[in-house]
Amino acid sequence: MIRDLNETIVAPATSLGQGAIAIVRMSGDKAISIAKSIFKGKDLTNADPGQAYFGRILDDDDKILDEVLLTIFRNPRSYTGEDLVEISCHASSFIVNKLISLIVQGGARLADKGEFTMRAYLNGKMDLSQAEAVADLIASESGMGHELAMNQMRGNISNKIEDLRQQLIDFASLLELELDFSEEDVEFADRTQFNTLLDEVQIVVQGLIESFKLGNVIKKGVPTVIAGRPNAGKSTLLNALLQEDRAIVSEIAGTTRDTIEELININGIQFRFIDTAGLRETKDVIEASGVQRTLDRISEASLVVYLFDLNAIILSEILEDLQNLPLKESGLMLVANKVDTQADQEKLVQLQLDLTEYPIIGISAKFEKNIEYLKERLYQEVLGEADLSERIIVSNSRHLEALQHVRENLIAVKEGFANQIPSDLIAMDMRQALHYLGTITGAIGTDDLLGNIFGKFCIGK
Amino acid sequence: MIRDLNETIVAPATSLGQGAIAIVRMSGDKAISIAKSIFKGKDLTNADPGQAYFGRILDDDDKILDEVLLTIFRNPRSYTGEDLVEISCHASSFIVNKLISLIVQGGARLADKGEFTMRAYLNGKMDLSQAEAVADLIASESGMGHELAMNQMRGNISNKIEDLRQQLIDFASLLELELDFSEEDVEFADRTQFNTLLDEVQIVVQGLIESFKLGNVIKKGVPTVIAGRPNAGKSTLLNALLQEDRAIVSEIAGTTRDTIEELININGIQFRFIDTAGLRETKDVIEASGVQRTLDRISEASLVVYLFDLNAIILSEILEDLQNLPLKESGLMLVANKVDTQADQEKLVQLQLDLTEYPIIGISAKFEKNIEYLKERLYQEVLGEADLSERIIVSNSRHLEALQHVRENLIAVKEGFANQIPSDLIAMDMRQALHYLGTITGAIGTDDLLGNIFGKFCIGK
Repeated sequence: MIRDLNETIVAPATSLGQGAIAIVRMSGDKAISIAKSIFKGKDLTNADPGQAYFGRILDDDDKILDEVLLTIFRNPRSYTGEDLVEISCHASSFIVNKLISLIVQGGARLADKGEFTMRAYLNGKMDLSQAEAVADLIASESGMGHELAMNQMRGNISNKIEDLRQQLIDFASLLELELDFSEEDVEFADRTQFNTLLDEVQIVVQGLIESFKLGNVIKKGVPTVIAGRPNAGKSTLLNALLQEDRAIVSEIAGTTRDTIEELININGIQFRFIDTAGLRETKDVIEASGVQRTLDRISEASLVVYLFDLNAIILSEILEDLQNLPLKESGLMLVANKVDTQADQEKLVQLQLDLTEYPIIGISAKFEKNIEYLKERLYQEVLGEADLSERIIVSNSRHLEALQHVRENLIAVKEGFANQIPSDLIAMDMRQALHYLGTITGAIGTDDLLGNIFGKFCIGK
Repeated sequence: MIRDLNETIVAPATSLGQGAIAIVRMSGDKAISIAKSIFKGKDLTNADPGQAYFGRILDDDDKILDEVLLTIFRNPRSYTGEDLVEISCHASSFIVNKLISLIVQGGARLADKGEFTMRAYLNGKMDLSQAEAVADLIASESGMGHELAMNQMRGNISNKIEDLRQQLIDFASLLELELDFSEEDVEFADRTQFNTLLDEVQIVVQGLIESFKLGNVIKKGVPTVIAGRPNAGKSTLLNALLQEDRAIVSEIAGTTRDTIEELININGIQFRFIDTAGLRETKDVIEASGVQRTLDRISEASLVVYLFDLNAIILSEILEDLQNLPLKESGLMLVANKVDTQADQEKLVQLQLDLTEYPIIGISAKFEKNIEYLKERLYQEVLGEADLSERIIVSNSRHLEALQHVRENLIAVKEGFANQIPSDLIAMDMRQALHYLGTITGAIGTDDLLGNIFGKFCIGK
């Protein structure tokens, strides 16, 4: 449910943890007058937009709450398209809370999650898929995830979808015209031309749908399992992969690592390596449940790296292991470990000749041989030939769902033509397709949809 | 150790958790030229100070890292007194880290903790005790704590200390003059007048030292124990006290509560109520260790509320309990619970007549009778007659330590006069006193001192 948009809203715009500065933001008709009532410094009546003014915030007892910088942005040249005030204060929770209380006393209310961005959308500052990209951008943790979100925020998906919609709308209006003359049984829309257009559109829709698999792993990281028998060297490999993933960033961010997952960034894609127990048949119940968990993890993973000790396993055992892997849709990579000597190399070549079905990558985890090559292969396995800057990639499951509906509707339209179904039924499917395309950019929006989308934002955005 | 102050520094100025906006800040000679090299938008050469400019940050591959607002503040009109640039970007850890990396590539280095504020101090924007108050202000969680920090930031302690220092310096220089003429045995400094001055200064120093006890509890909260026998109603009382401490703030801040401590804000002072096991003699070892912990807590607390069930205890038992409380320096308040009926009231009056030594506060925790009055009494117990706006209160333990040194030195000076000790020895004590006063405001500062103070700040401040 959308709350009253005529109200002035307020929220902290920065995270509330330890920091030097916090920003409190308000938007709406009363924003500037409320600012005037609590700010002692520059007379805000003539304040230049975008100019930071130094002054004091006085509380209800006329005591100094804080010394702040205050900046006004005027409707429509602001993030929300409304009058917007940003107050940069000391990052004390006491000050931030008190400041917000004062603003609420002045006539604002606390903003809902994502309400600033929702207002930006409703005031035409951005469309819906761009607004969603703002949330993705904030959440992005890898270079590729960031690039996807940035492209979407800058409108590449919106443009593509609008393009498709325009093509269909032109034809749909001809169809609608036929309905007006339905008694006369005329056909304004050229069926052959229409079929060609439908096929073209369907190819694009299908491409976007297929791009979601990639978009999703880029956005959420690639769940990757290193599977293999005990002592194959799984932990050593994980450490070797981790070792080079140290950058200036970790010094600052203090990123928390999940205990059972290790995040490794390869060329901007985040791989989530999931720790697993060794694969091994056992009668021990506890151990067996560990193996079961491993199998579950494998079936959920995007990518399975099957690692084996070249000198401790024979071909039939490898084949047996591979057969037991519950791969579902996961990709599979075979990696031979402990390829340390010339003799090992020759052995690996022989094994590859016997096992032509899978290419094998030879490494030495302990001596960190070929680790860079393995990373490159992992990256290729996920990205394939895709060039992100050229392609449009869907990473939002709401968009995927809408596109799947569009695909179904377009199939129905095409079948309708083939089966000579009356125009009014075909027109209904067409309208549905246009509707679902419209929901992606928000050209067609409902309260429920908006509440759902912006409810996932953080407060203050 | 202080690092090179000619270098340009960079750090996030906002907390790195979930938020809409993050601010990255840089300060130093190169700040503006680095900003120019990464910012596409307004030509920053002619940028107005304090004006926010919209533009894009491009990364090393000329891809768009983010759309940002960038603001320049020019030396000396900035927080640090140096050229300072603030970049307001989307609060993604990826973006913040990448942006900082770009700035570091451009020639800045990561700032040390508190280095922005240290530079502000070194560039004469504030003195040392004001700089320390910035950290206190950010950390303050209660109204009183905030007020103390704000007063200190605005210079009330600095002014007082400088006042004392000036008075002593005038006399000290006369003493030093005597040393130059020491062969001639003259006395430029009038001993009687000097003694009077010393006494006056000593009274002020002593007052400041004594204010620390209050300052410290205001800053850190008042550790308070509710002690009493099982079923006296300790938890019920705690809940009754907590119940009214709900404000708009908790909706926003998501303050974490320590499991064994409950924070209750009474008129701007934070009371840290510490949960304790009941007081009771027992032979059970585990239970006994609980009681021992309670006794330890009591001896460390600032305030002990002894709670008893009016209808379940007799005078001798109360006296026995009181005798067993290890009170050290804690204040003590007697509270009778379950004063529900008229008969209870009369019983309480009788008890008070028998126990004239302590005033007893009668409440009903269950029916929330007299809880407000109890709060008022708790507040009075801590604050006494103090009027914060009139008094100068020391809340920094470094200041306390310096003041204690000053007191010792001044005692030595006075004894020196009394015992006709040679001027050169007296002058040494005098110099020490001036030195310690000087360290409070930073009129006298050393590298060690600065490293120690600013090392306690967060990054970015």
